[in-house]
Amino acid sequence: MGITRVGRAWVYDFADGSKEMRDLLGGKGANVAEMTRILGADRVPAGFTITTEACVAYIEGGQSVPEGMDDEVDAALARLEAATGKTLGDPDDPLLVSVRSGARESMPGMLDTVLNLGLNDDSVDGLAERTGNERFAWDSYRRFVQMFGNVVRNIAGERFEQRIQVAKERHGATLDTDLDIAALTELTADFRDIFETETGEEFPQEPRDQLEQAIRAVFDSWSGDRAIAYRRINRIPDDWGTAVNVQQMVFGNKGATSGSGVAFSRDEVDGSPEPSGDFLVNAQGEDVVSGVRNTQDIADLRDVMPDAHATLMEILRTLEAHYKDMQDTEFTIEEGRLYMLQTRNAKRPAQAAVRFACDVVDEGLLTKAEAIATIDCEKLDALLHPTFDPTVDYAVLAKGVAASPGAAKGEIVFSAAEAVAAAAGGRDVILVRPFTEAEDVAGFYAARGILTAEGGKASHAALVARGMGRPAVTGASALDIDLDKHELRVGETLLREGDRISIEGTTGQVTIDDVPLVEPEMTAYFQRVLAWCDELRTLGIRANADTPEDARKARAFGAGGIGLCRTEHMFMAADRQPKMREMILADTTADRVAALAELLPLQQQDFEQLLEAMDGLPVTIRLLDPPLHEFLPPDEDDPRAHALREVNPMLGTRGCRLAILHPEIYEMQVRAIMRAQCAVTERLGHPPRLEVMVPLIDYERELEIIEELIFRVAREEGVAREHYLVGTMIELPRACFLADTIATHADFFSFGTNDLTQTALGFSRDDIEGRIMAPYIESKIFDRSPFETIDAPGVGQLVRMGAWLGRKAKLELKLGICGEHGGDPDSIDFFHNSGLDYVSCSPFRVPVARVAAAQAAIRRGDDGGW
Amino acid sequence: MGITRVGRAWVYDFADGSKEMRDLLGGKGANVAEMTRILGADRVPAGFTITTEACVAYIEGGQSVPEGMDDEVDAALARLEAATGKTLGDPDDPLLVSVRSGARESMPGMLDTVLNLGLNDDSVDGLAERTGNERFAWDSYRRFVQMFGNVVRNIAGERFEQRIQVAKERHGATLDTDLDIAALTELTADFRDIFETETGEEFPQEPRDQLEQAIRAVFDSWSGDRAIAYRRINRIPDDWGTAVNVQQMVFGNKGATSGSGVAFSRDEVDGSPEPSGDFLVNAQGEDVVSGVRNTQDIADLRDVMPDAHATLMEILRTLEAHYKDMQDTEFTIEEGRLYMLQTRNAKRPAQAAVRFACDVVDEGLLTKAEAIATIDCEKLDALLHPTFDPTVDYAVLAKGVAASPGAAKGEIVFSAAEAVAAAAGGRDVILVRPFTEAEDVAGFYAARGILTAEGGKASHAALVARGMGRPAVTGASALDIDLDKHELRVGETLLREGDRISIEGTTGQVTIDDVPLVEPEMTAYFQRVLAWCDELRTLGIRANADTPEDARKARAFGAGGIGLCRTEHMFMAADRQPKMREMILADTTADRVAALAELLPLQQQDFEQLLEAMDGLPVTIRLLDPPLHEFLPPDEDDPRAHALREVNPMLGTRGCRLAILHPEIYEMQVRAIMRAQCAVTERLGHPPRLEVMVPLIDYERELEIIEELIFRVAREEGVAREHYLVGTMIELPRACFLADTIATHADFFSFGTNDLTQTALGFSRDDIEGRIMAPYIESKIFDRSPFETIDAPGVGQLVRMGAWLGRKAKLELKLGICGEHGGDPDSIDFFHNSGLDYVSCSPFRVPVARVAAAQAAIRRGDDGGW
Repeated sequence: MGITRVGRAWVYDFADGSKEMRDLLGGKGANVAEMTRILGADRVPAGFTITTEACVAYIEGGQSVPEGMDDEVDAALARLEAATGKTLGDPDDPLLVSVRSGARESMPGMLDTVLNLGLNDDSVDGLAERTGNERFAWDSYRRFVQMFGNVVRNIAGERFEQRIQVAKERHGATLDTDLDIAALTELTADFRDIFETETGEEFPQEPRDQLEQAIRAVFDSWSGDRAIAYRRINRIPDDWGTAVNVQQMVFGNKGATSGSGVAFSRDEVDGSPEPSGDFLVNAQGEDVVSGVRNTQDIADLRDVMPDAHATLMEILRTLEAHYKDMQDTEFTIEEGRLYMLQTRNAKRPAQAAVRFACDVVDEGLLTKAEAIATIDCEKLDALLHPTFDPTVDYAVLAKGVAASPGAAKGEIVFSAAEAVAAAAGGRDVILVRPFTEAEDVAGFYAARGILTAEGGKASHAALVARGMGRPAVTGASALDIDLDKHELRVGETLLREGDRISIEGTTGQVTIDDVPLVEPEMTAYFQRVLAWCDELRTLGIRANADTPEDARKARAFGAGGIGLCRTEHMFMAADRQPKMREMILADTTADRVAALAELLPLQQQDFEQLLEAMDGLPVTIRLLDPPLHEFLPPDEDDPRAHALREVNPMLGTRGCRLAILHPEIYEMQVRAIMRAQCAVTERLGHPPRLEVMVPLIDYERELEIIEELIFRVAREEGVAREHYLVGTMIELPRACFLADTIATHADFFSFGTNDLTQTALGFSRDDIEGRIMAPYIESKIFDRSPFETIDAPGVGQLVRMGAWLGRKAKLELKLGICGEHGGDPDSIDFFHNSGLDYVSCSPFRVPVARVAAAQAAIRRGDDGGW
Repeated sequence: MGITRVGRAWVYDFADGSKEMRDLLGGKGANVAEMTRILGADRVPAGFTITTEACVAYIEGGQSVPEGMDDEVDAALARLEAATGKTLGDPDDPLLVSVRSGARESMPGMLDTVLNLGLNDDSVDGLAERTGNERFAWDSYRRFVQMFGNVVRNIAGERFEQRIQVAKERHGATLDTDLDIAALTELTADFRDIFETETGEEFPQEPRDQLEQAIRAVFDSWSGDRAIAYRRINRIPDDWGTAVNVQQMVFGNKGATSGSGVAFSRDEVDGSPEPSGDFLVNAQGEDVVSGVRNTQDIADLRDVMPDAHATLMEILRTLEAHYKDMQDTEFTIEEGRLYMLQTRNAKRPAQAAVRFACDVVDEGLLTKAEAIATIDCEKLDALLHPTFDPTVDYAVLAKGVAASPGAAKGEIVFSAAEAVAAAAGGRDVILVRPFTEAEDVAGFYAARGILTAEGGKASHAALVARGMGRPAVTGASALDIDLDKHELRVGETLLREGDRISIEGTTGQVTIDDVPLVEPEMTAYFQRVLAWCDELRTLGIRANADTPEDARKARAFGAGGIGLCRTEHMFMAADRQPKMREMILADTTADRVAALAELLPLQQQDFEQLLEAMDGLPVTIRLLDPPLHEFLPPDEDDPRAHALREVNPMLGTRGCRLAILHPEIYEMQVRAIMRAQCAVTERLGHPPRLEVMVPLIDYERELEIIEELIFRVAREEGVAREHYLVGTMIELPRACFLADTIATHADFFSFGTNDLTQTALGFSRDDIEGRIMAPYIESKIFDRSPFETIDAPGVGQLVRMGAWLGRKAKLELKLGICGEHGGDPDSIDFFHNSGLDYVSCSPFRVPVARVAAAQAAIRRGDDGGW
C-alpha cells in the first residue's frame, strides 16, 4: 500500500546531491553530497540518502513504506556494492554501513546513528579475516548489536552498559579497549540475549532486514515525543520529515593509525582563526561525542598523524571558503587515510560570530555582506546584557518565559513601592509579582530584574522590561506567590521578602544559587560589524525612549533618533501622580486646566532634556495615549474614577479620542513641547528635530482637528512650522484603509503594530497570550506569537496597504514602525521589504536591529524581495 | 471683501431653475422653479433665488456678502420689476415681495418667511389706493413690521402680540380681523416704536435696505443655535448652506374672494386618494399655519370658490404625476385667481405611505418600482409595533434614546429576577436598570419593555431589546436609580417598584401617564407592498432568531430563513444556568464532558423545534461565541471564575478559540445539532436546511480543525455531508485579508459587522457609544454611529475585500451579514451593492429590510451602483 510517489525519486546517491537539495535530502545528506562533489569521492565514503519526502509519505501512509521505495533502496545498495566492491552480508568481505537520520535542520532528539550495520554471525568472521584484526571485528559486532538494540529497538542503554561493567570486572579490564576477543565474543552473545529478552525476537541476522528496521526506526523517530517537543520549541514544522543517510563504514577503530574526531574550521567559542576540535586515536565517532573517553585537542593531531592533520586543515579551509561560513565537521582516519563524514555551518556564540565576520573580511575570504549574513542576530542580545557565568553550575529553581534578556540578582520584593524604597536604600532587588500593571512601572525602574508567575513574551511585564532593558522572566508558573504573607513557594522551597534570588532573562531560568554574572562589552569586533551594517542597510533604526537616560543609551547603541517617546511614562513618577489624579478627576474643564498648568513645567523639563540629549537626531514625541483610568491607583474609589473604567479599555476612550473629548490635555502637552523646543533652540543655537505624533487615529477629521490645535499652539509659542513635523500612529485597521486621507494631514506615519495586531486579530494581548499561544502552536494554527513576529499575511498586509495609500497621497511621507516588532529580525526583514523608512525598538535591541536591517538588505539583493 | 465666485451665478430667476437644482437653489427654490416650468409663469408668482453657494461664501467670508452678489440681486430685482410692471418702494404701486429661506432639505429652526417686504410709510398709501383697500394695506404694513422685527431682528414675538391684545381691548375687537383702519394704523406706529426700542434703529424705510437685511438674516439663521441643533439631529452637513427666495407677493387677504391654504394631493394621514388640507378666506399663509384662526377643510373650498378649487385639484394631480410622489403644497387665492407658492414631497406616516404606493400603482400613475421608491422605510417600524395613541396628550417624565421601537406599559421592576417572577404571576412589567448585562436577558423575555439610564443605540440593552422586539428606551440620564432602595427618582418625582410607567421606544419618551396604546396591524396595503418588494429585490432577508418563538415570528414577517441563531441564548434559561456553571468551572476535561452531556438533550430539543419551525428554509446555527465568564453570575466568587475574567473580553478567549482550547464544548453542540437534524428529518420526511456556523475565525487552520470536528460528529450521527453546510463568521480584519484561504473550508461566510466595526475602528461598543458619539458628531468626525450604519470606507471595504477574496477562492460561496447593520436601510443598500446574497436582522426589522432591499435594487438600476 502506501502513498504513490509523484515524479521525484525516493533515493539519491551522494554523488547526485548538492547543498541546494537540503529540503529533500536533509542537512546531513545535502552536505555529504556537497562534500563528495568538492572534495572528491575518495575523501567521502560512498552512500545514498532516502529523502524527507519518503519519510512524509511513510507517516501519511500510516507507517507504511511508500510504493517503489524498497526497490530504489535495493538499486542504490547495488550501486554502493558495485562502487565499493563489497556486498552487504558477504560472509567473506562484508559491506558495512552507517544509518543516520538527517532533517532539514539539525534536530537532537531524533534517532541519531547506527554504525556497523551489516554484521552478523557469519560476516563478523569475514571482517576479522579481511582486516586481520579479530578483536576489531568482534568489537564492531558488539557495538552494532548494542546500538541497534538501543537506537532501533529502544532497549535502555544501561541494560548493555551493566553487562560491559560485569565483563570488565570478570576480565580484570579497566577500559573498554582492555577487553580481549574472548570477552567481546561473550559480550556480543550477552547483548543478543538482552535483545531477545527485550524484544521477544532474535537479533536479525539478515543485513537487508537490519537495514529496513533501521530505516523505519529513523522515520518513526520523527514522530517520537522528544522530536515533537524539540520541533515545538524550535518552530520546526511537522511536515518537513527526516531523510535517512546510508553510508559505507570507515573505521577509526583499526588501531594506532586510525581515529575519529570533530573539528571546527575556527575556534567555536571566541571565533579566533585557529581550527579547534577533539579527536581520539583508535576510536569510532561515537566515542568522541559520548564523552566516555578523554579526547585530545585537535592541535595534537599534528604530532600523532601529521599527514592526516595537514589534509584536515586544508579541507577545513576549502569547506569554509566553499560554504562561506565557519564549518563544524566530523572525520574518521582509517589506517592513516582521512575521510570526511559530515560538515555543517558551525553554531557559535555571538562573540565568535562577530570575530569570524571581521576575520573573514580581513582575510579576503568573504565580502562584508557575506560576512554579515553569517551572523545569527538573535544571539547578539547576549553581547548587550550581563549573563550567568557559563562556566559555573547552579540548580534551576524554576523555569519561565525568557521575557527580557540579561541576568540579574537581588533581594526579593513583592511590590513596586518596596522596590522603590529598597533601591533608594542602595539595595539590589528583584521585583516578584503574579503579574504587573501600569502602576508597577516605577518598580521596574528601581529593580534589577522582574520575575512574574503569569504572562508570556508579550505580557505587560515583558514589554516594559524589554523597553527598559531590565532582565525579566515571566510566566514562571511553578511560583506560588502569597502577596499577603510576603512569601513565595516553589515546591518545597519557601522564600521570604529579602531572600536572594537570581534570574536569567535570556533563558528563563530562576535560581537561588549565587551565580556570578559576566558583564557584556561592545567589543571592537562588534563595533566594526555594526559599522558595516550601517553602511549596508537602508532601513533607519530608532529607539523607543521615554527618558533622557534612555535617550543617551539609545544614542550609545547607535540609534538614529527616537521613534517613540511615550509621554504617559512621564506621568508615572511619584511626584506627578497626585497632580495627574487631580487632572483626571477634575469636575470641570477649568479645574482640569488648572491641574494641567501644574504639570506643564514638569513635562517641559522632560522634553528639554530629551531634545538636548538627541541633538541632531529626530525625536518623535507621542501625545498621551492610555485611557485616563490607567493613571489612577487600582483602589481609587472616587465615583468619578469608577465612571472612567471600561469593559474593553484597549478599545476605549484613549489616544486622540481623549483629545477630542478634552482638548486641554493635548494643548498642555503641545505647549510644553513647543516651549521646550524654544528653550533648547536657544541653548543649542539651532532647532532640535522635533516630531509630534498623534496616537489612535481612525478618521481623517480627528487628525485635522488635532493638527489645527498643534499649529495654533506652536504659533502662540513662536515655533515656525518648518521646525517640527506632525505625524500619526497608524494602529487601527480603519486607518490603514483610509491612510490616503489621513496622510493629507501628516508629515509621517508610524505604524503601531502592537495595537494593530490586537485589533486586526481581535487578540487582547493581556488576555490571550497566556492562554492561547501554547494550544495554538500545538494545533499548528501559528508557529509563533504574532506579537513577537509580525503576522505578515494579515497585519503585515494592513501595514503595506497603509504605506501604499499614504505614499499614494503624499509621495514624501515618512514611514516607520514603533512597537515590539521593531526589534524582531524577521519582522525587520518584512518592514524593509515593505519600503518603510525606519523601525523603532527598545534601546537594547538597537544593535540587533542594525544587523537585522543589514541582513534584510543583503537578502533583498539576493532574492529580489518577497 | 468676501469670497470671489468661481463660474456659477449667485442668483437665478425662478424661470431658469428646475427641481434638479435642489443643491444649488434649495428645496423651495428648486420646486418653485419647477412649478413655474410645468404650471406656467402665470400660476406661480415671479421671483428669484440667491443660491446656497452664496450663503456658504457669506459664512466663509466672515458674514460678508460675496463679491458680485449685490449686483446680481439688483439685476434680478430689475428683471422682476420689469416682469411685474411694478417697482420696489414705488409710492404709487409698490412691488411687494416675500423673502424665504430654503435649504436642500426642509429645515424648521431656520428663519422662515418675511412677507410684504417693500412697504414703508409712503408705499402703504400707494398700495391702499391701487387695491382700493386701505384696511388691507395697513394690515399688510402692520404684519410686515411685526414679521421683520421678529424674524429679521429677533424681537420677541410676544412684544408685538401684547400690543395686539391691548389694541383689541381698546377697540372692542375679538378677532384680528375686527381691527379697523385706525386701530391698524395705530398698531403699526406702536410696532415701529417697539422696533426702535429693541434695535436702537429706526424701522428701515428704504426697501432695498429692507431686502438686504432680510437676505443677511436668512444667511445668518443658517448658523443659529436652533438650526445647528436641528442639523445635528438630522445629520445635515453644515456646509450645505441655505438659499434665499425672493418672490412677488400675492395676497390672500384681499377680502372674500381671496384666501390662503395648504393642500396635500392625498390624505396625508391614511393615504386615501382624496386631497386633504386647510384654508382660510381673506388671510395670508401665515394665518393658516400659525393656528391662530380656525381653518376650513379643503373640501369646503369647492363651495366657497369652486373655480379655484377645481384648478387646485387639477394642479395637485399634475404635480403628483410630475413628481411621482404625494405632494404637500401651499397656495394663495388673490381675488379669485389661484397661485401656487410651494410644493414638495409630502412627509407622511407609514400607513399613508403604503396606501399611496398601492393606489398609485392601481391608478397606473407609477410603476411598482417607482411606488416603492416613495416609501421612507425607516418609518415602517411603526406598522410593526404598538405605539402611544397619537391623539392623546401626556406629560413626558424623561427622554432617552429611542433604542428599540414600540410602546410598552407596566409596573416598574429593578431586576431580571423580579421581572421573571412578576411575569410568571401574570403582571406586565418594565425592567428598569442603570444598564443591562448578559445575565439580565431572561428579564428581557419576561418584561414588556426595557428602560435604562445609561447606554445608546448600540448598548447591550438596545441590541438585545431590538433582537427580541421588546420596546426599549436607553440612556435616559435624568433617571436616578437606587437599586438598593428599589426606587427611582426623576427630579422631584419618586417612583417605587410596582409603580406604573410607560415607555415609547420609537421616540425615547418615558411617562407615568396611562397613555393608551395603538396596536399595529400588517394591513393589506403593507402586505401588497412587501410582496412587490420581494419580486424586485435580489438580496435575501433572513432573521436573527434564537428560539422557536422568534423563528415563527420571523417567518410571519417574511424572513427567508434564519441567518443567525445564537446558541448561547439557550444557556441563559434558568434551568440551564447551573449546568452551564458546572461545565464552565469544571476542573478536568472529564468533568466538563459530564456537565456537557446533561446540556446536550436540552440543546437538541431547542434545535429540533427551531428546525421544524423553519421547515423548507435555511437555518444558520452559530456555535458558542461569548467568553465563558459571561455565563457566570457577576458575583460568582469561585477562584476558577476569577481566572476566566479578562481585561478586554471582546478580544479574549471566545468564539472558535474556545473550541481550540476545549473541543468538547463544540463537540456537544454539533452532536445536539446533528441529532436534531436526524430527528426532524424523520418527522418531516426530508432533511431541514441546516447551516452550522463557526464564530471569530482568524486563521484558516482554526476553521480546518473545527470543520474536521463537525464532519466527524456528523458522520458519527449518520448525517450525510450534503445535508448540512459549514460556514464561518467573518468578523475580524485579519479574516477579511485571509478570506481566500478561509473560504476553502467554508460553504458560506456571514460577515459579523458588529465585531468587525469594533475591531476595525478599535471601538468598544460598550465603552464608546455613550461617551464618544455626541462629541464626535459635534466635531463632524462622523455623522452617525458606525454601529447604526456601516462605516462604508473602512468596515465596508473590509467586507468587500472579504467577499471578493472569498469568491475568488470559491465562486459559489454564499455571502451574508448578520448584525445590527442587517436591519439598517443605508447599510442594506451598501450590502446589496457589495454583491452579498442576504442580510440577517432581528425578526421585527425583516419587513423594513425587505423594503430597503427592494429600494437598493431599484436605486442600483437607476444609477448603476456605487
